[in-house]
Amino acid sequence: MRLRDVGEREAIAVILKRLEAMPNMPIPFGDDVSAYSLNNDLFVLKTDMLVGLTDIPKGMSLWHAARKAVVMNVSDFAAKGVRPYAALVSLGLPGETTLNEVEEIAEGLNAGVREYGVYILGGDTNEASDLVISVSMFGTAEKGSVMLRSGAKLGDIVAVTGFFGRTSAGLKILLEGCKATEDIRDALLGAVLMPKARLDEGLALKASGAVTASIDSSDGLAWSLHEISKASGVGFILDNVPVAEDVVKFAELNELDPVELALYGGEEYELVLTINPKLWDRAKETVERVGGALIKIGRTVAERGVFLEFNGRKRVVKPKGWEHFRRH
Amino acid sequence: MRLRDVGEREAIAVILKRLEAMPNMPIPFGDDVSAYSLNNDLFVLKTDMLVGLTDIPKGMSLWHAARKAVVMNVSDFAAKGVRPYAALVSLGLPGETTLNEVEEIAEGLNAGVREYGVYILGGDTNEASDLVISVSMFGTAEKGSVMLRSGAKLGDIVAVTGFFGRTSAGLKILLEGCKATEDIRDALLGAVLMPKARLDEGLALKASGAVTASIDSSDGLAWSLHEISKASGVGFILDNVPVAEDVVKFAELNELDPVELALYGGEEYELVLTINPKLWDRAKETVERVGGALIKIGRTVAERGVFLEFNGRKRVVKPKGWEHFRRH
Repeated sequence: MRLRDVGEREAIAVILKRLEAMPNMPIPFGDDVSAYSLNNDLFVLKTDMLVGLTDIPKGMSLWHAARKAVVMNVSDFAAKGVRPYAALVSLGLPGETTLNEVEEIAEGLNAGVREYGVYILGGDTNEASDLVISVSMFGTAEKGSVMLRSGAKLGDIVAVTGFFGRTSAGLKILLEGCKATEDIRDALLGAVLMPKARLDEGLALKASGAVTASIDSSDGLAWSLHEISKASGVGFILDNVPVAEDVVKFAELNELDPVELALYGGEEYELVLTINPKLWDRAKETVERVGGALIKIGRTVAERGVFLEFNGRKRVVKPKGWEHFRRH
Repeated sequence: MRLRDVGEREAIAVILKRLEAMPNMPIPFGDDVSAYSLNNDLFVLKTDMLVGLTDIPKGMSLWHAARKAVVMNVSDFAAKGVRPYAALVSLGLPGETTLNEVEEIAEGLNAGVREYGVYILGGDTNEASDLVISVSMFGTAEKGSVMLRSGAKLGDIVAVTGFFGRTSAGLKILLEGCKATEDIRDALLGAVLMPKARLDEGLALKASGAVTASIDSSDGLAWSLHEISKASGVGFILDNVPVAEDVVKFAELNELDPVELALYGGEEYELVLTINPKLWDRAKETVERVGGALIKIGRTVAERGVFLEFNGRKRVVKPKGWEHFRRH
């Protein structure tokens, strides 16, 4: 069996079976970040790699790609409510890369980390066939304070920090020649080229104490909800799919389903959260105080899985999302 | 200018110019590890990438390659006298990789970390054209206790933790068809396939308080000495190039210069150290107590650079070593 037939998640399962797990891991394998516990501190670690072959769409500059490699990692810290301090970067570069291109990558990396108060402390440069940007990030947290995927409870409110579908639409413009009018084009392309991590929102939400489970939506909204569902042992009914207005227009123009664009995208960096309903107001106010938004999209139910309530009918939301190696 | 013309070090220089440095970095850019300082603690971080294209010679299995990707990182911690606790691994894998090969990589990674008391806490899997294994490692240290490259003083003893040249010889067997008799073949190939990091030695040496500067020899003995020379502002005269006995035999058999093999190799993971001469005995005993060796190879002098004293004559040791992108 080859990876191109079985996909990334099967590869991860095979790897995890072969790794000896550290006793008493403070954050289990498979959550957005990892952690090491020493005395009363939690050291939070994350690594995420961007590969030119699959992760840089036509139309994205090296500056944008390098910045995005940083944002991807910051987003995972944001989802856990942990402030990242420092980053290391390992680069794989083809021999034909020019020094100007290297400069552009370095500037994109620096722009990305400084946007979130992080510094790059070191790294490594290597020759490779593809461009590879592997970022590792480090932060600290108090024990027990990290927002995991596993705490969602029956009756919790499901919420997100923004609207979805812009990245899917932007990629369809870049890669499939889909149409967009002037007034929405920039926002849709901007979602692809200049993604933002919701770090302020994540830190504020952790401080509010209202969050029971959290994940970032980098694998798509549907996939992220399924991940919380699996980790927490609950299900979700969505009654308000948070489709961005631009995406509704874009979908109409291209005869696409806007809900599909919002649910099954990926490379979006909103936070997907379950919130203790008693603390909803506090959570919403806290996020708004840092300039963000908290949007109710549904509720937690006992039946596992993710469902869409629409005109009184229930539709299944499939665990579909971006996966390396698989061609949809 | 393309990387294949200017080499890896020029790329690093370009990158460093574009990165905003964190104020008061506890360990400067370019040392073997990076560090972040918080309250009274130093968080030590390192990332190093192994790329199939350039770093896996013919004859090296994926298990060996994965284990080596770990050892490379442990070796940098060893050189700084810091115990690593945890690792993250980002993989780039070609689509045609089989699940059996993924298993082999995972087992090699696990074998590597467990050999040094480290656990893998998380990671990331991606599709790439080459096999890419990017390992990040994490440990802690007391402030001011890390053995840097920059502390060598006039009159210090230059020492190493083992003999050199086996890896160069082993690579010449694998890649250039050089000859080796039965009695030395295993040791030479073993140096390539199963490198060891000198973690026990590094930790013991730090505890001895005798070390003034330290580096690992992954870029070759000559290169490593030049790095300490640059960082410390001193020079070195070597009167005893630590050539492994097997390498002398191998060199004779293949009409090669054994001293060249020992000086200008790379991918060797001995520690290269300068030692306060008053504390030499203590340093040597400490290393021997953990089963290691400390071999005097020269002394620190005021004249910058690295020199070989041989039959009363002084020869320059060039700053030559392994560099990505450049074909020697």
